[in-house]
Amino acid sequence: MGPSDAARINAAVAAQRDFASGLFGQLRQDGLDDPGVTRDPYGAGEQRAHATMAAAARGLGLELGHDAAANLYMTRPGRDRGAPRVVIGSHLDSVPHGGNFDGAAGVVAGLAALAALAGLDLTPDCDVTVMGIRAEESIWFQVSYIGSRGALGTLPDGALDVRRIDTGRTLADHIAECGGDPAALRRGDRFLDPRQLRVYLELHIEQAPSLVAAGRPVGICTGIPGNFRYPDAVIEGSHDHVGLPRRFRRDAAIAGAEFAMALDRLWEEHEARGVPMAATLGRFHTDPAAHGLTIVPGSFHFSLDVRAYDEAVLAELDRSVNAIIAGIEQRRGVRFHLGAKARAAVGPVDPAIQASLRAGAAELGIAEQDLGSPASHDAAAFAACGVPMGMIFVRNENGSHNPREAMTLDDFLAGTAVLTWWLIQNLARGAGEVEARKRRG
Amino acid sequence: MGPSDAARINAAVAAQRDFASGLFGQLRQDGLDDPGVTRDPYGAGEQRAHATMAAAARGLGLELGHDAAANLYMTRPGRDRGAPRVVIGSHLDSVPHGGNFDGAAGVVAGLAALAALAGLDLTPDCDVTVMGIRAEESIWFQVSYIGSRGALGTLPDGALDVRRIDTGRTLADHIAECGGDPAALRRGDRFLDPRQLRVYLELHIEQAPSLVAAGRPVGICTGIPGNFRYPDAVIEGSHDHVGLPRRFRRDAAIAGAEFAMALDRLWEEHEARGVPMAATLGRFHTDPAAHGLTIVPGSFHFSLDVRAYDEAVLAELDRSVNAIIAGIEQRRGVRFHLGAKARAAVGPVDPAIQASLRAGAAELGIAEQDLGSPASHDAAAFAACGVPMGMIFVRNENGSHNPREAMTLDDFLAGTAVLTWWLIQNLARGAGEVEARKRRG
Repeated sequence: MGPSDAARINAAVAAQRDFASGLFGQLRQDGLDDPGVTRDPYGAGEQRAHATMAAAARGLGLELGHDAAANLYMTRPGRDRGAPRVVIGSHLDSVPHGGNFDGAAGVVAGLAALAALAGLDLTPDCDVTVMGIRAEESIWFQVSYIGSRGALGTLPDGALDVRRIDTGRTLADHIAECGGDPAALRRGDRFLDPRQLRVYLELHIEQAPSLVAAGRPVGICTGIPGNFRYPDAVIEGSHDHVGLPRRFRRDAAIAGAEFAMALDRLWEEHEARGVPMAATLGRFHTDPAAHGLTIVPGSFHFSLDVRAYDEAVLAELDRSVNAIIAGIEQRRGVRFHLGAKARAAVGPVDPAIQASLRAGAAELGIAEQDLGSPASHDAAAFAACGVPMGMIFVRNENGSHNPREAMTLDDFLAGTAVLTWWLIQNLARGAGEVEARKRRG
Repeated sequence: MGPSDAARINAAVAAQRDFASGLFGQLRQDGLDDPGVTRDPYGAGEQRAHATMAAAARGLGLELGHDAAANLYMTRPGRDRGAPRVVIGSHLDSVPHGGNFDGAAGVVAGLAALAALAGLDLTPDCDVTVMGIRAEESIWFQVSYIGSRGALGTLPDGALDVRRIDTGRTLADHIAECGGDPAALRRGDRFLDPRQLRVYLELHIEQAPSLVAAGRPVGICTGIPGNFRYPDAVIEGSHDHVGLPRRFRRDAAIAGAEFAMALDRLWEEHEARGVPMAATLGRFHTDPAAHGLTIVPGSFHFSLDVRAYDEAVLAELDRSVNAIIAGIEQRRGVRFHLGAKARAAVGPVDPAIQASLRAGAAELGIAEQDLGSPASHDAAAFAACGVPMGMIFVRNENGSHNPREAMTLDDFLAGTAVLTWWLIQNLARGAGEVEARKRRG
C-alpha cells in the first residue's frame, strides 16, 4: 500500500465507528459509579472491563492470553510468529469516579486498528498484540505501572505488599483474586521479554487541554515525564489554642501552605525558563481526628508528585524540595516527615516512531502537533526496558481523572487511523501486494 | 480587714489545696478520653462535670440552681439578698481530647474562694454565685458563649437549630436532654438581669505561654478579643489530572495556601505595628472524598477565626480578608464560598476591677502582669451586656485545647488568692469588723 491508499485506511477505520461506540457504551455501563466510572484495579470494576474487552477480542477472532499480573493479551497472529511482536497497550483501570476514556480508549483503539487491518485484508508480518494492562492508576496502590512492570519483570521491591487505600488489602491478595500469580511476580519472572518486542504503541486521551486550545484532534508524543513522589508526608507542629500569639505557634498547616507556595513559585520559574515540569499536592490537609475551628493545627498531611521530562531536572527539583523544607522547618519550628519515596524514570519516545506517526497523520490529512505527555503512562515502563515506544494523544475536553472528560468519536477515529497507518506502513502486506512483489521480483 | 490581713487570706486559700486537688482529680476522672479529657457540651462529659461540681457545692452548703440553658448556679447568700450579686463563672465543657483545666479551673477557684471566705468567717454583703457555664467551646456547635448568652437572653438567632458537629443533633435537642428549656431560650427569656449583676469575675488558665516566659504565676486581664469567623468555607476550583500544566490549573489547595500565606503576612505586619490580633485556619483541607496522589484538588475546605481587641481593627481585617480573596479568585480561577459568618464582640475589662485585682496581687505578694486575653471567654458575653467584668489568668505550660496543658496547684492557689482578696476587699464584712463599725458609728 502507498500514499494513495490514505482514503482506504481512513474508510477502514471509519467502518469501526459502531464497534468502538458499542464498546465504549458497554465499558461505561460496566463502570458506572455516579458521578463517573470507577474501574478499581484488581477489583470488580476492572474485572468487568477485562471481561468486556476479552469478549470483543473473541468476536474479532483474536487469540487470548494472560500473565502472572493478570494482564489481558489479545493477539492477531502475524506471518512470522517467531518474530519480535508489536504491543499496542493501555490500561483498563480508572481513578475513583473518573472518566470512561482514560486508559480504555487505547485498548479499544488497538482492537479497532486490528479490525481495520482485517477489513483491508492485510496480515502483519509479526504478531500484533493488544494488551489490556492492569492497575496503572497509582492512586489506588500508590505504585506506578503495576501491570506493565509486572509483565516486564520490573516491579519495584515491596510492591506486592502495599495495600490498596480503600480495601486495605495487599496487591498480592488482589492479584491472586483476579487469577494472577503473585509468587511468580515476587520471583521477578517476566512474561514479556523486551528483546522479543519490536515496538510498544499506546493511544491515550490528552489529559490537558493543549489540543483543544490548538484545535487539533491528534498529538504525537515527544516524551513521558519521570517523577518522584512522597505519597504520605506529614508535617509535625504543635496543636494549640486559637488565641496563641504568632511567635509561639508551630502551625503545621501554615508550614504546609508555605511549602505549597514555594513549590508553586519554583514551577512558575521553570515555566518562565521553558523547562516543563509539574508539582502537585493532591492530598493537602489538616488531621480530621484533631482539627477544629478553635485549634491551631499541630499536624498536616500531604502527598507530593513532582514530574519532569529530564532526569537532571528531576534531581535538581528533589534538591530544591529539600532546601525549601529545611528553611520552613527552621523558620516555623515544625518537622517534615516525608515518608516513603517512589520514583518513575523518564520515558523517551523512539524518534523513528515519532517521525513515522507524524508522517502518517500528514498522509491521512489529520491535523496533529508534537506534545510532551503531561501524564505518566505504561509506555514509560516499556521505554525503561529499551523497547522502542511511541504514543498518540487524542483531543479531550475537561482533562481526565474526572467524570467530565469528553473525547469525540471522530477524534478517537482520527487517532486510531494514525495508529492503523503505522501498522500498515511498517508491518502489513496484503495478498495483492505480495503478488505484485512476486511479479516485480 | 486591711492590708495586714494578706497573710491570713493567703493561709485561708492555701487551706483549700486538698479541696481543689480532689476536685481536679475527680473532674479528670469524669472526663478521661485518652489522650486528655473530653467534656462534650450538653453531653455525657459535661454532665459528669456538672454533677461533680454540684456535689462539691452541696458539701460547702451553697444554694444550687439552674436556668433554661442548664447552667449551674452555686450561691453563698449575702447579707442583703436583694442587692445585685457577684457572679464568678467559667465553663465546664472542653474541646475533644483537651486538658483538665481550661474552663473548670475557674469554677473550682470560685468554690475555693467561697470556702476560704467561710474559713475566715466572713459574709459578703451581697449574694456571690459561682456559675458552672455550659458550652463555651465553640468547636462543637460553632457558636460562641452558648451558656452565658443563654443565661443573659442574648443567644444569636438560629443558634438553637445548629447541630453539634459530632452528633448531628440540634443544640435545642441537646439542651432539652440536659434538663434545659429550649422554648424559653427561643423566646429570649433571661435568667440573669444585667442590672442585678454587680460584677462578673472569671479565673482561667492562660492559653499562651506569656506568663511562663515572664516567670509570673498570675496575669490581670486587660481585654478579651472580639472575633469574626467563617466556620465552613469552601474554595471551588477544578479537579484535574496530575499532569495538567500550570496555566490550565484551577487548584483549590494552592489557592488555599496562597490565602493562608497572605493572612500570615497580614498578621506579621500587625505584630510589627504592635496591633494585637490572631488569625487561625483550624480546619484546612482537601476533600477526603475526592483527593488523591494523582488528582489536582478541585475543592478545598477551611475554617477561619480572626480576633482582635478593637472593633475597628476587626472591621479592617474583615475588609482585608475579602480583598485577599478577590485577588486570589482572579489570579487562580477559583471561587471562595465563605458560608455563614459568626461574630463575637470585643470584651472590655472594667478599669476599677482591673486596678483592684492588681492591688490585691501586690498586697498578697503575688507577681503579676497585665495580659490581653489571647482567647475568647464567657466574660465577654457579660461585658457585652454592660456588666463590669474582670479576669485573672493563671500561668499554664503548653497552651490549652490539648492534653498537655499544665497548671501547678501553687499557681492556681495564687490566682484564687487574688480572687478571694477582691471578694473580701469589696464585699465581705466579718462579725468582728461589724462590731467594730458599730462601735465607731
